[in-house]
Amino acid sequence: MKTVDLNADLGESFGAYTIGCDETIIPLITTANIACGYHAGDAQVMAKSVRLCRENGTALGAHPGLPDLVGFGRRVMKVTPEEARNDVLYQVGALSAIAHAEGLTLHHVKLHGALYNMAAKDYALSKAIFEGLKAFDPNLTMLVLSGSEMQKAAEDLGMKTACEVFADRAYMADGSLVPRSVPGSMITDENEAVRRTVRMVKEGIVTAIDGSDVPVRADSVCVHGDGEKALLFTRRLKEALENEGITLRTFA
Amino acid sequence: MKTVDLNADLGESFGAYTIGCDETIIPLITTANIACGYHAGDAQVMAKSVRLCRENGTALGAHPGLPDLVGFGRRVMKVTPEEARNDVLYQVGALSAIAHAEGLTLHHVKLHGALYNMAAKDYALSKAIFEGLKAFDPNLTMLVLSGSEMQKAAEDLGMKTACEVFADRAYMADGSLVPRSVPGSMITDENEAVRRTVRMVKEGIVTAIDGSDVPVRADSVCVHGDGEKALLFTRRLKEALENEGITLRTFA
Amino acid sequence: MKTVDLNADLGESFGAYTIGCDETIIPLITTANIACGYHAGDAQVMAKSVRLCRENGTALGAHPGLPDLVGFGRRVMKVTPEEARNDVLYQVGALSAIAHAEGLTLHHVKLHGALYNMAAKDYALSKAIFEGLKAFDPNLTMLVLSGSEMQKAAEDLGMKTACEVFADRAYMADGSLVPRSVPGSMITDENEAVRRTVRMVKEGIVTAIDGSDVPVRADSVCVHGDGEKALLFTRRLKEALENEGITLRTFA
Amino acid sequence: MKTVDLNADLGESFGAYTIGCDETIIPLITTANIACGYHAGDAQVMAKSVRLCRENGTALGAHPGLPDLVGFGRRVMKVTPEEARNDVLYQVGALSAIAHAEGLTLHHVKLHGALYNMAAKDYALSKAIFEGLKAFDPNLTMLVLSGSEMQKAAEDLGMKTACEVFADRAYMADGSLVPRSVPGSMITDENEAVRRTVRMVKEGIVTAIDGSDVPVRADSVCVHGDGEKALLFTRRLKEALENEGITLRTFA
Repeated sequence: MKTVDLNADLGESFGAYTIGCDETIIPLITTANIACGYHAGDAQVMAKSVRLCRENGTALGAHPGLPDLVGFGRRVMKVTPEEARNDVLYQVGALSAIAHAEGLTLHHVKLHGALYNMAAKDYALSKAIFEGLKAFDPNLTMLVLSGSEMQKAAEDLGMKTACEVFADRAYMADGSLVPRSVPGSMITDENEAVRRTVRMVKEGIVTAIDGSDVPVRADSVCVHGDGEKALLFTRRLKEALENEGITLRTFA
Repeated sequence: MKTVDLNADLGESFGAYTIGCDETIIPLITTANIACGYHAGDAQVMAKSVRLCRENGTALGAHPGLPDLVGFGRRVMKVTPEEARNDVLYQVGALSAIAHAEGLTLHHVKLHGALYNMAAKDYALSKAIFEGLKAFDPNLTMLVLSGSEMQKAAEDLGMKTACEVFADRAYMADGSLVPRSVPGSMITDENEAVRRTVRMVKEGIVTAIDGSDVPVRADSVCVHGDGEKALLFTRRLKEALENEGITLRTFA
Repeated sequence: MKTVDLNADLGESFGAYTIGCDETIIPLITTANIACGYHAGDAQVMAKSVRLCRENGTALGAHPGLPDLVGFGRRVMKVTPEEARNDVLYQVGALSAIAHAEGLTLHHVKLHGALYNMAAKDYALSKAIFEGLKAFDPNLTMLVLSGSEMQKAAEDLGMKTACEVFADRAYMADGSLVPRSVPGSMITDENEAVRRTVRMVKEGIVTAIDGSDVPVRADSVCVHGDGEKALLFTRRLKEALENEGITLRTFA
Repeated sequence: MKTVDLNADLGESFGAYTIGCDETIIPLITTANIACGYHAGDAQVMAKSVRLCRENGTALGAHPGLPDLVGFGRRVMKVTPEEARNDVLYQVGALSAIAHAEGLTLHHVKLHGALYNMAAKDYALSKAIFEGLKAFDPNLTMLVLSGSEMQKAAEDLGMKTACEVFADRAYMADGSLVPRSVPGSMITDENEAVRRTVRMVKEGIVTAIDGSDVPVRADSVCVHGDGEKALLFTRRLKEALENEGITLRTFA
């Protein structure tokens, strides 16, 4: 039986500020990545997010980022591997404690924003972060970009690894994402986005921006959690995957 | 055999800023309370503090505070019990993960500064915080002010509880501390501070500011971790306790 | 000719987070109070807010708060008058520079949230803050709660002072606001809110919660800047005031 | 008459944390660059620093940095020119208001840490920041690295510009600083550091790391403000400059 996971980055509200339709999206997806207070989220939002995951049976993961709240963790910062390791441990531990107090256990970790992009290209950075996480809890799965240095580092450490693909992003011939600044980087036609995703999940292949076929490992598809359009697309993608006989289920 | 613990609030450095003589004091004491990033400390300092505790066999505890770095957690803030519960879980979890990654387990939790003082007088606040901690890890000991609402709340929840006393503070007839704003609140004569401490540990009694004898529970004595004078006093207090046949050991 | 000002607390977005319908409300009102980065707002949002005020001819003021972003400046913190003075100067200066760089001059200052409520009852706190502001720029108007200690302190310092009233809040017999926790503290009937406001502006009188008539000084009416309902009410209040022959204009 | 300025980066304490010997160094130097709360400093520290400058007749400037307190503003962050412009205005305005409230006017601005290094190599970034400052206050002098893109941008904008040199840093043949990671980047022999500085001030020439003579513009010499060694070196450098008949005076 073919299965795939749908994950979304959530728990991004902060204090009086709201981002994301967490209550609506969490029942649709199988895995939630919850912000941990550095780039978004706070202790109250985290507690609420954990309860939403518990009520919906959604797998709960940590989504740690750079210490840049005003920049939403999207600005590259020159952090050392050691700094990143401890900053990630700090955030993952914070969510882990809140989860335990609600009777849940952390299922996985996915890095956020600029830290995700930096680690995707930087083996040493990924390794330092993942070594810390392995020493904390060897049962955690690393949710990483398919084909990235993150994937290599997690696998080399013998950690459980799940790879994610993007429905709405174009790929390079080497399997990396086309940078957002490049024309054609986004798949704006929803039909095409659905078709590409189904193919990535069923065949493990995506057509790159140069027309070549590229292998990808699609354990999980990342969907967006904010806005009506994102919700509609997620519902549609889910239906398309189920129509293909694919079971939606979090990665093991 | 009579035993007592010496605890100090440490790990209070932050980024480029240094507070405290952690390297010197940690070998002298039996229990360290490590700041967790809200009022002091950061992920790098926490990792370093954990390693210092491991190397010296010092019991490692979390020292969570209010979210007020510039005020060092010393300014009263009107937080709800629910906010305090989640903010404490966040901080304790952060340190717990860093500790686990270094092969250590958290031993206890002691609240910091204004949060400590608020909880000492507020049963509902203490209960909310400690319920969260019990749900996270029922093996944690709550290190509380002897005779406070914190002590009552922790005991009512059936949690392991250790009580601390202060060598350099005067006590009211009801066992509470004389507020710092009141003349005579500090015991400035070191000989007297040592004598009072030995009596609290051996007999469980302290002479209050009105001259009456007051029962206290002295599982632990809080000492300061910054400055040459604090170090000298700690050495002296330690010697005096050992000369009385009291073994220095962390609370069970 | 009778005039009155409509003011709203704006510029409260932060980084990726949006609060308030600033683009829609700024053209409707005569005076904007812009958050300055402690409880809400950031340097980019402030620059955008200043430009919106310039484009709409709306008077620009600073809205400084407590250093509590996650609490939106709504939680009481025990700050000293000296701390509050410098924290307010810091924020007001930050907005003033951004305003000058866009060709605007600050018109007034209104404290935010818990700091506003604390100062309303605390003459010494108000005086310390306003002395700092007077020393910075004696032309700034203090926008204060009618009948409060803030008003007294600003007037005693010989500063320009404008008093605000609230359309949707009940008043005590002494002219203070009925605390939100008390039943009947909010005027939920919009017709009544409009009628009361018109009377406060025309006659300088409001009916208190005990039925007595209380004098108020209504230089400005505070309206809300977030949500469709707030916008509709503002439009309606504006129309009602204009129908009474009252000109909407910022305080001098 | 030959003159030169001695500047130091100060006001870097924060809350309960102390960095720097401000009270000792401020009387020795002619110009102080005061941190503004992003990478170091807070409103209370800023007020204290302003008073120290006033009491000692030391020229007062702002030292704005990146929003990275835990990293002390030393970590490169990918900020846009627009973000940097507004973040710098925010900080400079904050100090300006505190200065005005103490009867002082800001004399200059010097960027801090990673922002300084980034701007030194990035004309567009420097230009955006300086345009904002010029629109705020055209009388401010930009204190920049001699020979940098910062210098070019400030001069192209027609702003007052002062160039600084470093006593303890080696120079490349193109006049830029040898990166700290390169062996030989620091001038550790104090005699040599003094000799080099005197030559830079008197002749406008420094011997580069490749042995070539390189022109520099030494309006100001940057000295350190923390630690006994730094104080001794500053005293010695001051004496050496005065023995050469050079008057110590802030840049005009």
